[in-house]
Amino acid sequence: MEKITSLTNPTIKRLKSLDRKKNRNETGLFLAEGARLIAQGLKNNWQIDTLLVAESSMDRPHIAQIASDALGAGGRIISVPERLIAKITKKDNAQNLIAAFVQKSLKLDILPPGEGRWVALFEVRDPGNLGTIVRTLDCAGVTGLVIIGNCCDPYSVEAVRASMGSVFDLPVAHASTEAFLEWRLRTQLALIGVSVNGSQRHDYVDYSNNICLLLGNEQSGLPQPLEDACDALTLIPMRGGADSLNLAQATAIATYEVWRQRDFS
Amino acid sequence: MEKITSLTNPTIKRLKSLDRKKNRNETGLFLAEGARLIAQGLKNNWQIDTLLVAESSMDRPHIAQIASDALGAGGRIISVPERLIAKITKKDNAQNLIAAFVQKSLKLDILPPGEGRWVALFEVRDPGNLGTIVRTLDCAGVTGLVIIGNCCDPYSVEAVRASMGSVFDLPVAHASTEAFLEWRLRTQLALIGVSVNGSQRHDYVDYSNNICLLLGNEQSGLPQPLEDACDALTLIPMRGGADSLNLAQATAIATYEVWRQRDFS
Repeated sequence: MEKITSLTNPTIKRLKSLDRKKNRNETGLFLAEGARLIAQGLKNNWQIDTLLVAESSMDRPHIAQIASDALGAGGRIISVPERLIAKITKKDNAQNLIAAFVQKSLKLDILPPGEGRWVALFEVRDPGNLGTIVRTLDCAGVTGLVIIGNCCDPYSVEAVRASMGSVFDLPVAHASTEAFLEWRLRTQLALIGVSVNGSQRHDYVDYSNNICLLLGNEQSGLPQPLEDACDALTLIPMRGGADSLNLAQATAIATYEVWRQRDFS
Repeated sequence: MEKITSLTNPTIKRLKSLDRKKNRNETGLFLAEGARLIAQGLKNNWQIDTLLVAESSMDRPHIAQIASDALGAGGRIISVPERLIAKITKKDNAQNLIAAFVQKSLKLDILPPGEGRWVALFEVRDPGNLGTIVRTLDCAGVTGLVIIGNCCDPYSVEAVRASMGSVFDLPVAHASTEAFLEWRLRTQLALIGVSVNGSQRHDYVDYSNNICLLLGNEQSGLPQPLEDACDALTLIPMRGGADSLNLAQATAIATYEVWRQRDFS
């Protein structure tokens, strides 16, 4: 097996550089840390580029199994000292494994047809929020997520961590506002906005048709053109005087209400 | 107005030390950052100990108003260079204001009587999760939150930040498992657990009586004795194959289902 011990090795430098969006975009790669996540990526047939294994953990059976699976999937396997992994993840207690996978840059028109329960988010800022939402939508079995406009990167290290592996499960597409609205008309999804400007209680909407929930940015919510495009603009009740729900919390509450109305089927 | 410029000044060192739980416990103080949070603390009559104001922002009317209110409430007001505030908050772009408030160490028996909608959490580990939950429960108008056992500190900097001011709104009590169970029996609250071991769908429970939702720790959920004490042990549905919901997300979904069944009144 290949072995690297130097932080200045070009492969290590390339992996380390994936903490920046620019480098993720240029290479089309992203990082996943830890045995659980990496095993999930391999199980779901995501293309693995490189797997770094801490040399001290090579004799553990479940680590050896993952290395063997990654090799079988065409990945490059490299044994490294633990401190190298710690440098890449910037965490003191490093994982035994870190891998670079190839991103799936999904387009709306290659996603499954518009049927089902969709969620769309406009310009989310916080990658931890986005990763948490990906995890929740995966649990709630939504058909897919569309991120609209200048959104934070679902392949950032923080978002992948917060998704707890759901990044490998949930179809996520990126679209401009125009492309999103065109797709939604073409696929005849009912568009249900969730907004502090909403006039209808979120649980008073009939969600039995194919729908897409739409939520906005943490600070400024949804822009006017997107609110205007909604078939219904709904509001999650809050007690008077309270500020607002965190975006991930609002998305969870709205998504589960849709699913509840469909009897969780 | 008092003025301090040195990081080694004892008052500054004391405030800076409040990033540690030990020091928060010994002093009974905690930090709140920024105009919005501090104004909310003052408005809700929390006792302010010290307010640091960035000298560059003293001429802004809303900052001057907060300083005046803090002085009226018996606080000590100190003008400092911005970099001192940045040192205390450990953030590059420092707030204009930081304040130490006196904690409210609530006991279960001085909380409002058991009527209403309560939430209890067993040994939450992540302060960001706890702060986000405090924010959501405040929005959902729950009567109060009980944190049980060896829980992370709702007065930590990270929890206070994530609560977005709701730490000044929501009654929070800390109790041992024994004290919690005694209180719950005495106040005749129905105890509804939310757990991956639950056998009943969370939305199939009748929440019209006075109840307390109970959720467990991020990694290990609820301990057996607490699950055994529940009147019902419920499960939030998840699609097959998904891992689990984040604790804050599960708490939001369960809490809003209770409130929805009461028609958000």
